[in-house]
Amino acid sequence: MSSSYKSWLLLTGFIVFYMAYLMLGALIFSTIELPVEDKLKSDIRVLKAEFLNQSCVNATSLDNFLERVLQANKYGISVLPNSSASSNWDMASSLFFANTLVTTVGYGHTTPLSDTGKAFSIFYALLGVPFTMLVLTACVQRLMHVLTYGPIGMCRRRMGLDPRTATAVHFSILLLLVILGFFVVPALVFSQIEDTWSYLDAIYFCFISLCTIGLGDYVPGEQPGQKFRALYKISVMVYLFLGLMMLYLVLRAFHRMADIHGLTAFFQLPHCDEDSDDKEPIIKAGPEDQNENEPNASFKPLAPASQISYNTMQR
Amino acid sequence: MSSSYKSWLLLTGFIVFYMAYLMLGALIFSTIELPVEDKLKSDIRVLKAEFLNQSCVNATSLDNFLERVLQANKYGISVLPNSSASSNWDMASSLFFANTLVTTVGYGHTTPLSDTGKAFSIFYALLGVPFTMLVLTACVQRLMHVLTYGPIGMCRRRMGLDPRTATAVHFSILLLLVILGFFVVPALVFSQIEDTWSYLDAIYFCFISLCTIGLGDYVPGEQPGQKFRALYKISVMVYLFLGLMMLYLVLRAFHRMADIHGLTAFFQLPHCDEDSDDKEPIIKAGPEDQNENEPNASFKPLAPASQISYNTMQR
Repeated sequence: MSSSYKSWLLLTGFIVFYMAYLMLGALIFSTIELPVEDKLKSDIRVLKAEFLNQSCVNATSLDNFLERVLQANKYGISVLPNSSASSNWDMASSLFFANTLVTTVGYGHTTPLSDTGKAFSIFYALLGVPFTMLVLTACVQRLMHVLTYGPIGMCRRRMGLDPRTATAVHFSILLLLVILGFFVVPALVFSQIEDTWSYLDAIYFCFISLCTIGLGDYVPGEQPGQKFRALYKISVMVYLFLGLMMLYLVLRAFHRMADIHGLTAFFQLPHCDEDSDDKEPIIKAGPEDQNENEPNASFKPLAPASQISYNTMQR
Repeated sequence: MSSSYKSWLLLTGFIVFYMAYLMLGALIFSTIELPVEDKLKSDIRVLKAEFLNQSCVNATSLDNFLERVLQANKYGISVLPNSSASSNWDMASSLFFANTLVTTVGYGHTTPLSDTGKAFSIFYALLGVPFTMLVLTACVQRLMHVLTYGPIGMCRRRMGLDPRTATAVHFSILLLLVILGFFVVPALVFSQIEDTWSYLDAIYFCFISLCTIGLGDYVPGEQPGQKFRALYKISVMVYLFLGLMMLYLVLRAFHRMADIHGLTAFFQLPHCDEDSDDKEPIIKAGPEDQNENEPNASFKPLAPASQISYNTMQR
């Protein structure tokens, strides 16, 4: 079996298993949390009815009521009438929660209510976070050939650029495309779909999400009466995964550029890993593509050069 | 100037500049958000007074009131009387927010209220997140000598273990110590300090925080009347930073072990970066320590071996 075939088979296996892991997580979270959520929802409904039935509202009774309301709200359960239709722990929402857990985004707009849910979150993330890193790394490593080594080789061959300039030009174009494709355009889409989001809110959401900060003040698909909520949630999940992958790719391309320009050596950081396996073509390339995947070998002379400048600085 | 001296000088410079960056961020966040928070706080106080003054409370007026209350709560402003004393945007809280932003933990228990605050968050994290990664990488790279290469060398010399076993034994001990020192013991402390946290809650908080998921359902120092709140918040920040550093160290040690055991080759992932710079002693070591830092060279024969098994599998 050829190397590239095995490589793709392994990657496909990873992705299929990753999706199965997310589905299984969603199923378990939903099973654990849905009854607890229902209980809390009906409790808060009774509480509200009781509060409204009071003949006279005083500060103490209001504070007691508000304390319970805010406590429920912490778990993503709203006391408002228009928000009671959708659950935070149906399959789509549980899948979204499982996804934000393993990608470490963690919006926290819904959090496990029960001790079982909390314990399972720990266990699930313990396996899921490294697994997500593995899948992302495997995807990015293969994408590096198509989106980094290939284009840099083409820059050098067609435009006759030296390795440093070619890497810098490539990085600038890659960064611009990622900003457009994963920030500017998605923010436009989100600001159209979400009624209350301004364009700044949407850009802020994209940025806070793809940096995995995930403050959770803006979460898509949470407005009451959201159309195609399940589909929308899953689309956001796909956007998050692809966005994280592309940001990781940008980071690796930057690391590589910094390495070639001697910056990693200056800061005494680990060099970008550029072993020969990393450069194996992952798809059966035509003669044209083959040429574009090859010129990495010609980068090698640069590495000792940057080492020399580092050593000069060091000793 | 000696290499190790320069290395330490650079690291110290990084850390001092990092602390200055956090302080500056806290100052700006506090300046931007404090007036907006005060305005929202007084608005919500007036709203509550008006609501209480109503002769008769009906469902509509209650829902309108609750909508505003929940909206304010999203920004971390509580309508409850006992929570009005402490601000979310005093210096200590702003510092804590800046720290959770750049470490990508992002609890989201407080979020920027104003558009200026949101825009500044984007700008601040844009510089801060890569800078934090740089500082963490620089720290971990230097810690690797003391906590990984050194102990593994000692295992091999004193106990006569082969490289694979020595790495596995070292990793198990390191993992155990990190679990004890950064999960088990801190959770004990948190569950003592925070009145409403069970031990499971505290472990859940430590785990969710150090994985940078940061759901924000449990945030230390947020209970009303918290003693030494500023000091406590800063201690939590230090805990988070050290914890992230140690988890990153565990990850690198694991990557190294996986590399030696041929796992990275099996999954076709980038090899652990083990260039010679990485092994320069960072402190002027005595003859004893020198020996402990050296044995990495003897790992080298293993790398080709794992390459061979990989190549055998591949071709």
